Amino acid sequence: MEFELIEWLAQRVPAHPSLRLGIGDDTALLAAAGETLVTVDMLNDLVDFDLRRDDPRRIGRKSLAVNLSDIAAMAGRPTAAVIALALPRTGGLALARELYEGLLPLAEQFGVALAGGDTNSWDGPLAISVTLLGAVSPRGALTRSGARPGDRILATGEFGGSILGRHFDFEPRVIAATALHARYDLHAGIDVSDGLSLDLHRICLASQCGAVLDLANIPISQAAVELAKQDGKSALEHALSDGEDFELLLAVPPEEARRIVAEQAVGVKVTDIGEFVTEAGLWSRASDGVRSPLAPKGYQHALS
Amino acid sequence: MEFELIEWLAQRVPAHPSLRLGIGDDTALLAAAGETLVTVDMLNDLVDFDLRRDDPRRIGRKSLAVNLSDIAAMAGRPTAAVIALALPRTGGLALARELYEGLLPLAEQFGVALAGGDTNSWDGPLAISVTLLGAVSPRGALTRSGARPGDRILATGEFGGSILGRHFDFEPRVIAATALHARYDLHAGIDVSDGLSLDLHRICLASQCGAVLDLANIPISQAAVELAKQDGKSALEHALSDGEDFELLLAVPPEEARRIVAEQAVGVKVTDIGEFVTEAGLWSRASDGVRSPLAPKGYQHALS
Repeated sequence: MEFELIEWLAQRVPAHPSLRLGIGDDTALLAAAGETLVTVDMLNDLVDFDLRRDDPRRIGRKSLAVNLSDIAAMAGRPTAAVIALALPRTGGLALARELYEGLLPLAEQFGVALAGGDTNSWDGPLAISVTLLGAVSPRGALTRSGARPGDRILATGEFGGSILGRHFDFEPRVIAATALHARYDLHAGIDVSDGLSLDLHRICLASQCGAVLDLANIPISQAAVELAKQDGKSALEHALSDGEDFELLLAVPPEEARRIVAEQAVGVKVTDIGEFVTEAGLWSRASDGVRSPLAPKGYQHALS
Repeated sequence: MEFELIEWLAQRVPAHPSLRLGIGDDTALLAAAGETLVTVDMLNDLVDFDLRRDDPRRIGRKSLAVNLSDIAAMAGRPTAAVIALALPRTGGLALARELYEGLLPLAEQFGVALAGGDTNSWDGPLAISVTLLGAVSPRGALTRSGARPGDRILATGEFGGSILGRHFDFEPRVIAATALHARYDLHAGIDVSDGLSLDLHRICLASQCGAVLDLANIPISQAAVELAKQDGKSALEHALSDGEDFELLLAVPPEEARRIVAEQAVGVKVTDIGEFVTEAGLWSRASDGVRSPLAPKGYQHALS
């Protein structure tokens, strides 16, 4: 990492108990840990943000937040991050500082040690790659593959329209996930990064089951309502298929799900939005009880 | 990671004992470990390679190899890697496969579990970010800060001219480093990524001492000799200041250094190239014993 940036960061990053070597060294040294979670996400200009328009602090925050959401999906506790930057040649140092100004408060909020990084200049656009490590909860990692027919589908927060701003400023559900996993019996979980129906479909594939969504119960965000006014799609469609909600979907046995919904004790509203079923596939159920096939929709990453 | 790439990788990546969840999951789950090393390096088109000219397999190999070198510098054992790619929109999938075709054999050679990744397409050039985890040796991590006045400076391999090809095809000194650390008493180490004199200077700064290089003993590569013919700089200058040798510099007590050099038992030639001294600074010593100040030179990462 560049000297100027190391100096600058050294004044802003608090000492972390698990970090033996870090910023300024090529390689960080972390205290011993149990089973370790590792996730990486890269954000790219004009794909995940638009540097001409978006505040670099929000971009920097998001680069860590999306990884925190991945650790939350497994009910893990985030521990340490390393950050690789490809910066435009002009104004790179100032940009790097602004990115870190957005990222550091979130790291501190969630107890994440900044364990190092690699900072580069090039003629290309801004790219940010954050790798986040996490510790597995005492109850083990929550995975996608444990949903069973009869389990309820629980969701945190609200869905749709994140493009209007929430895709930057969302709260990664780390605290809710660890609290739920510690207090209740959860079977499976995922974070909604690509769309409610698409990520629900992924739990179904991993768990070899299907799911029925009760459309009337889907929590629709105000942003989805606003977006619907602009583009003619319904707010419900937005809620089902917009990416980057970064809320949790959980598979929970019915009695436990009733407790969670009744107690509402994890800092974010938890809603029962349907159930897992034996038959593979995805369905919607209208308020009159009629089931229709539902195509999983969302942000599809495609390579060509 | 994209479905097509996951399928393709699944057929090529052997099962790894420490990997519980990996490719195809957003987050990998690794077996419990002691103190953990973490390093990240990002390679960028037209900075670290030139995609118009260089074989993507060599680029992919290098993206892991530079991180292996960082783990070697601390005498660690590499364990698991996650890889983030920013791919050009056209031909991205084929390119990703070629990168992995170069990377996977190296991962297998060094027992590295491919623990996941994030694959993106964009309108920018190719960027590859590899994060590598490692286990600390039973003797602890080798660091930059343990050199003491009187220690000999030992170097593996040869220096200079890596731009002619070795910067792609170098052998990361993982095996030599762990063998040396296990059998001998090493005080400090670094890998030469930015230039012999510059990285030696870094050990000096971290260890609060100086160093004297015996110029006649510097192992100069054939590539440095060839490059000298082309550009008028001397081969020695190339050896002292060219980046990307990825050899090791070690601080070793004199008696132990004599044993290492006499025994030559770690698979790569180890040479005594000078000594650490009390006074801060860097000097060269000619064969007549005359000391002159030596400016640390090498690849300087600068942000503007």
